[in-house]
Amino acid sequence: MAEYVAPTREIRFVLDHVIDMAELLKLEPFQEVSDDLVQAVLEEGGKFSSEKISPLYAVGDRQGSVLADDGVKTPDGFKDAYQAYVENGWNGICGPVEYGGQGMPQVLGTAVQEMMASANQAFTLCPILGQGAVEALEAHGTEEQQKTYMEKLVSGEWTGTMNLTEPQAGSDVGALRTRADPQADGTYRISGQKIFISWGEHDMAENIIHLVLARTPGSPEGTKGISLFIVPKYLINEDGSLGEKNDLRAVSLEHKMGIHASPTCVMSYGDNGNCVGYLIGGENQGMRCMFTMMNNARLNVGILGLCAAERGWQMALDYARDRRQGKAIGSTSEGKSPIIEHADVRRMLMTIKSTTEAVRAIIYLNALALDMGRHHPDGEVRRKYRGLADLLTPISKAYGTDLGVENSSLAVQVFGGMGYIEETGIAQVFRDARIHPIYEGTNGIQAMDLVGRKLAMDGGEHWQAFLGMTEDFIAAMPEIGELAQYRENLSRITADCRESAEWLLAQQKQNMRDVAAGSVPFLRLMSMVVGGYLMAKAAVAAQTRLESGTGNGDEDFLRAKIATVRFYGEQVMPTAFGLKEMVMGGDSLFYAIEDDHMAL
Amino acid sequence: MAEYVAPTREIRFVLDHVIDMAELLKLEPFQEVSDDLVQAVLEEGGKFSSEKISPLYAVGDRQGSVLADDGVKTPDGFKDAYQAYVENGWNGICGPVEYGGQGMPQVLGTAVQEMMASANQAFTLCPILGQGAVEALEAHGTEEQQKTYMEKLVSGEWTGTMNLTEPQAGSDVGALRTRADPQADGTYRISGQKIFISWGEHDMAENIIHLVLARTPGSPEGTKGISLFIVPKYLINEDGSLGEKNDLRAVSLEHKMGIHASPTCVMSYGDNGNCVGYLIGGENQGMRCMFTMMNNARLNVGILGLCAAERGWQMALDYARDRRQGKAIGSTSEGKSPIIEHADVRRMLMTIKSTTEAVRAIIYLNALALDMGRHHPDGEVRRKYRGLADLLTPISKAYGTDLGVENSSLAVQVFGGMGYIEETGIAQVFRDARIHPIYEGTNGIQAMDLVGRKLAMDGGEHWQAFLGMTEDFIAAMPEIGELAQYRENLSRITADCRESAEWLLAQQKQNMRDVAAGSVPFLRLMSMVVGGYLMAKAAVAAQTRLESGTGNGDEDFLRAKIATVRFYGEQVMPTAFGLKEMVMGGDSLFYAIEDDHMAL
Repeated sequence: MAEYVAPTREIRFVLDHVIDMAELLKLEPFQEVSDDLVQAVLEEGGKFSSEKISPLYAVGDRQGSVLADDGVKTPDGFKDAYQAYVENGWNGICGPVEYGGQGMPQVLGTAVQEMMASANQAFTLCPILGQGAVEALEAHGTEEQQKTYMEKLVSGEWTGTMNLTEPQAGSDVGALRTRADPQADGTYRISGQKIFISWGEHDMAENIIHLVLARTPGSPEGTKGISLFIVPKYLINEDGSLGEKNDLRAVSLEHKMGIHASPTCVMSYGDNGNCVGYLIGGENQGMRCMFTMMNNARLNVGILGLCAAERGWQMALDYARDRRQGKAIGSTSEGKSPIIEHADVRRMLMTIKSTTEAVRAIIYLNALALDMGRHHPDGEVRRKYRGLADLLTPISKAYGTDLGVENSSLAVQVFGGMGYIEETGIAQVFRDARIHPIYEGTNGIQAMDLVGRKLAMDGGEHWQAFLGMTEDFIAAMPEIGELAQYRENLSRITADCRESAEWLLAQQKQNMRDVAAGSVPFLRLMSMVVGGYLMAKAAVAAQTRLESGTGNGDEDFLRAKIATVRFYGEQVMPTAFGLKEMVMGGDSLFYAIEDDHMAL
Repeated sequence: MAEYVAPTREIRFVLDHVIDMAELLKLEPFQEVSDDLVQAVLEEGGKFSSEKISPLYAVGDRQGSVLADDGVKTPDGFKDAYQAYVENGWNGICGPVEYGGQGMPQVLGTAVQEMMASANQAFTLCPILGQGAVEALEAHGTEEQQKTYMEKLVSGEWTGTMNLTEPQAGSDVGALRTRADPQADGTYRISGQKIFISWGEHDMAENIIHLVLARTPGSPEGTKGISLFIVPKYLINEDGSLGEKNDLRAVSLEHKMGIHASPTCVMSYGDNGNCVGYLIGGENQGMRCMFTMMNNARLNVGILGLCAAERGWQMALDYARDRRQGKAIGSTSEGKSPIIEHADVRRMLMTIKSTTEAVRAIIYLNALALDMGRHHPDGEVRRKYRGLADLLTPISKAYGTDLGVENSSLAVQVFGGMGYIEETGIAQVFRDARIHPIYEGTNGIQAMDLVGRKLAMDGGEHWQAFLGMTEDFIAAMPEIGELAQYRENLSRITADCRESAEWLLAQQKQNMRDVAAGSVPFLRLMSMVVGGYLMAKAAVAAQTRLESGTGNGDEDFLRAKIATVRFYGEQVMPTAFGLKEMVMGGDSLFYAIEDDHMAL
């Protein structure tokens, strides 16, 4: 299996020409993030991911993480690679400067995360979870809590986890039962079991800081009565050194279809009645705190979808250029044709390539909007970007991860029979990718978030703003030339999206089940409008650079970009032509068959 | 994991009311296949598959088949179940009566095969391969060869394999290099390696009859110089008893993503220069013989796709009715809602259900067309049905297997986090399903077969006949009532299909690469027209029975059928609305980027 190679040129193009990171870098907190620094981060990140992380991808799958008597053993090489990751400062790249982080914008962190996770998804899940803990502590922790935990979490010397799920409480977080009993000293005693805890126990770091949702005695039912607790694997002494082991353990690991190196733990807290937890953010404020982690986590999972697509793309392209079978129609070369010349293989490759690039643009815009929403000096601008980020998050998560599965499946298909054999590695990408549409809120939940909350937010201001911007952009595109068909198709689905959104909002007042029934196709439709807008921007930027002679040696890349964009518009976008009808079909056919008659 | 339950009522409905098996059963060879016999076969087949085959599904995945020193060991229980399968006569159900078969129509064999393979895909692959050997021998074997092999192959006491693939010769069969050297006694000595040989070696039967493609010395290059050989694992003595072991062996087994119980062998022939083979069908006639097996095999793989969808459907439905999370919109019942009440879960379930039923109707029509094409007394009728079967085969294979993957993926999604855990079993269905779009000709090859050969066959007579029949049917459907929208959508995609087919045929004379570029979306478009026509027939038949009061207690089933058909038309068919544009887009965007610039 070839090692991952970071698509640095493509990422740089998106940052510079599609989402305009330069505007962000003018802001005060990023004064020191120069063009050269950005380039250095991308290049070094690419190098580290290829050389240190990617080589552990196959062994991680084969060996998996294993639960031994003294804890979870990660696969060969993982511990060393993680140490190098921490020592090289990759974990703290976006962390707060006051705790040793490098304070770079999240959009640049997104680029680094894309590289690491494309190289090795299971490995990169570990630091991703730590990021969530950093954000929750930064937003909701007391000064003392921040002092105790932040520095080590930012550096990655300690890792973090999120503990939401219990057997009866999956998507329905409010049903959880883990208890937190207050003690005289202000701490709590935690007791209960959590499932599906990624990296809940491992040997890569000296401590693990669990963030655990639990109920205090007498708390209200459902999500209103949930509180968040810091529950470290090892308690921390006054001087910051590690103290005694807390009363918690990994009981078992799940046998999963993929991401075998990522230990998915059943965690037991307080078997001996002595698990110490520290309240964070006030009693019954747990959901609010958890949302801080979850929004970030949803974007991160979208990135994992992108990574599965990118890794699948690289493998499939390599294989298709190498493998020779038959003679392609119109081939003039000697001998058998590399399968990349066959039209159906070409369709698969171009489909993967174009949709992967569209998803990348969406995700990077989402990250930029988060940065702008946090750091822009003008409050009104911040509010608008936060609205944009809120709108884009379910799209990044659901469209990104659905395409991760679809594209890695196409990549398996490019390999033919060899794709089904584990040794070639593409099967692993496909198996790894299948979790992403499920976790951090299933893609069905993302779709409900989009139509049920995000559309209506601030009186519909944010989707209106985005569609308005897209419509303006379309109006300014030339009606003739090679993007004419693209313009027509984008214009068509944008109009469909507007009509669908208006219909959904009207139904919100009448029949919320109609809204739910239309949510999934609406998310796909809107995703393709967002992707279509950003891809159009990319094509226009590429065209402009070619025409003005400022391609700087990237001319072939720029021409390929335009062709890729056109493929997205003419061969992918038409899959959205019927989505409006599906959105506006209403709920009646969904419930026409009684539950008891479904299996007749 | 719940055991498989055969959907006997649904299968019977398709046979009786959608594809009209009664017309077939009037033919002379099937005089003894009474209504009661059909019902008995379906019920006993259902029982056998649930009780004997389904319980081995999980263990087959967990243990897999393993290569030991003395050959391949199948998982616990497989050998006994296979013996019972043979003893109960299931293997010979469609086999020729003169060799001990029961001579039933293939369409009924299809129903039995659906049941067995839904219960256990990997297990059922073994008898499926034997069927192919029976057909090849029946069509091309000498009388002596038939006398030697047929009876045991028909009963299943011996199993059969197909040996096409070599490392350099996958889709490109003509590139194979296995040699067959003629001997003075009329036999041949076979030497070479074959890969991807399903059930190439195992312990379930006393002998394995390999059909092996090889080249005789001085044969023409490519597919024109290939011959087919019978190569038994044990040679057969004059009296029919087993003789000495032939010079062949399984060298290794592949580590696959799924179907672990099916040993995928690397087979070595003639390591000691003494592998005896018997020519079948004449020198250089191998491809013609192999096509006899392949057409059947393609339909069979389509059935496997259907089975993955059906098994996924049953598991997902069970889980969705059992698992409770949150409160569904509009729910009036107490407590948490079973997730089947949530709209996005309902969408997934109805999508699986409706497309699975569409695929089943297509596949059964395909099988019926094969029966009619073989057995109808009128030569012109036979010719027409053969044309229909030829047209439908790539559709059954590609649409059936693509939906097997899509639907088992949706089923995983219904399970949420539990879907990713191997113990629940749905992950296995998904992993097992992923091979089907690849083998027996990738789905890209099926699409090329459809647009490159089947459309133009007999001057386009067969697709014209099918579309004409569909258009007539649409014209006779009422314009109002609950099927009005269905009618409109089917009418729309049928017109798109006609326009696309005409465009493709026009391009055949100009630029064959345009045809290849449009092949994949055309196959999907035409599949949905065929599925749409058959589902409309189903709805009209159900409606008629309801209105005439001849539902015989099936009223709830019939009402569910109509609702399922409508879902297919209104929530699935719109995904085809943009396919015409994709078909007719031409090849230029496919090849706009040079191979060397794809990875820039």
